[in-house]
Amino acid sequence: MAAWGERLAGVRGVLLDISGVLYDSGEGGGVPIAGSVEAVARLKQSRLKVRFCTNESQKSRGHLVGLLRHLGYDISEGEVTAPAPAACLILRERGLRPHLLVHDGVRSEFAQVDTSNPNCVVIADAGEDFSYQNMNKAFQVLMELENPVLISLGRGRYYKETSGLMLDVGAYTKALEYACGIEAEVVGKPSPEFFKSALQQMGVEAHQAVMIGDDIVGDVGGAQRCGMRALQVRTGKFREGTVLVHGWSL
Amino acid sequence: MAAWGERLAGVRGVLLDISGVLYDSGEGGGVPIAGSVEAVARLKQSRLKVRFCTNESQKSRGHLVGLLRHLGYDISEGEVTAPAPAACLILRERGLRPHLLVHDGVRSEFAQVDTSNPNCVVIADAGEDFSYQNMNKAFQVLMELENPVLISLGRGRYYKETSGLMLDVGAYTKALEYACGIEAEVVGKPSPEFFKSALQQMGVEAHQAVMIGDDIVGDVGGAQRCGMRALQVRTGKFREGTVLVHGWSL
Repeated sequence: MAAWGERLAGVRGVLLDISGVLYDSGEGGGVPIAGSVEAVARLKQSRLKVRFCTNESQKSRGHLVGLLRHLGYDISEGEVTAPAPAACLILRERGLRPHLLVHDGVRSEFAQVDTSNPNCVVIADAGEDFSYQNMNKAFQVLMELENPVLISLGRGRYYKETSGLMLDVGAYTKALEYACGIEAEVVGKPSPEFFKSALQQMGVEAHQAVMIGDDIVGDVGGAQRCGMRALQVRTGKFREGTVLVHGWSL
Repeated sequence: MAAWGERLAGVRGVLLDISGVLYDSGEGGGVPIAGSVEAVARLKQSRLKVRFCTNESQKSRGHLVGLLRHLGYDISEGEVTAPAPAACLILRERGLRPHLLVHDGVRSEFAQVDTSNPNCVVIADAGEDFSYQNMNKAFQVLMELENPVLISLGRGRYYKETSGLMLDVGAYTKALEYACGIEAEVVGKPSPEFFKSALQQMGVEAHQAVMIGDDIVGDVGGAQRCGMRALQVRTGKFREGTVLVHGWSL
């Protein structure tokens, strides 16, 4: 632990993952991870800039922030970088009209997007809405397109709920990629554009920032590839056997 | 067409795929593909040996054969090579107790298999039973195993029903492979063992056999890698743009 000062020398901003780092989602809104409410409060009282960088794509930012505030976190909607709003920008820029394979809880984020006569598919963590019928509909939309475009909100393999490990959007994205013979575009971690937008919103350079997450690929690897430092917590989906950077002992 | 005699010189046996070659499945049992009832009848009147080699894993062989006989085909259960019975042999040989992620229609094929305290997962074309809950249960079983074994009945990307293209087991196998970081063992086409068992049951050597199917990878590529000849029909899932070997004009 003597090396902590050196390891974090020059850090001006902290990016915090949410699910598995602050709380585990689940029945009744989920439960906070021990020590994390206090850790966020201490960070915000420090001179460090703080931003929340999540791949949550089942809930709107408004819903997510309401839930976290209820659990005791000092967090506001403007402090959250999430994939659905980032995807909306891309859709608008490229004139894409998505067929949405998403959970009802996040649909409001796409309220301003034209979804008529779709020319792409957006897939998010649809949870229980990943029915065969919904997956097959998205597959059929893609197969009808001359140049099929699949935009995936994250590439997570799984996440942890209070009831256990849950399949995440990445698994279903793989299924559509394989069936259609295409490759999805990822909006969310570990996409470099996504990390860069979070850094910009925080006003901090990559080499001045540290990412804290529970996903060794999406959080730690992605941030490091962008020139940031990264810490892995031992909570959430963390399992012994993945490469450990460090536990929650900030 | 002048080259047909040469191309089929020395052929003693014909392996026929079923879905997309004989019929398209769907509401009310499906519909025969024009000319195929007669083609099967002519083949069986010829000196050629005939066997049906299918990746059908949503229906039991008994159900499938009943349905095909009803549509007019000369076919019996003993003439069909299908992945579920082949998987049962493997499970027994290796002392594997499967968690079954399969359609109710094929469950009877596993009636003699011990499914208590599972130490592997068998995934088949579960159709509507590919719910999030069922997928997540299979995922959790695999994640609990020290050496996770996933046996997939085929690797098809999609097949054609009368109502349109439908996601096949291969897409969902990919999802579990990605989520768990493992590779499935395939029982069914294009596995060489599966083709070899069909050839053995027919009593014909690979170089004396021709496979007729609608899947350029599962049927044509798989058979060719086993030393067989192969024809691709223009029916079923066939789409312009895939490599064509030949249409249904036997």
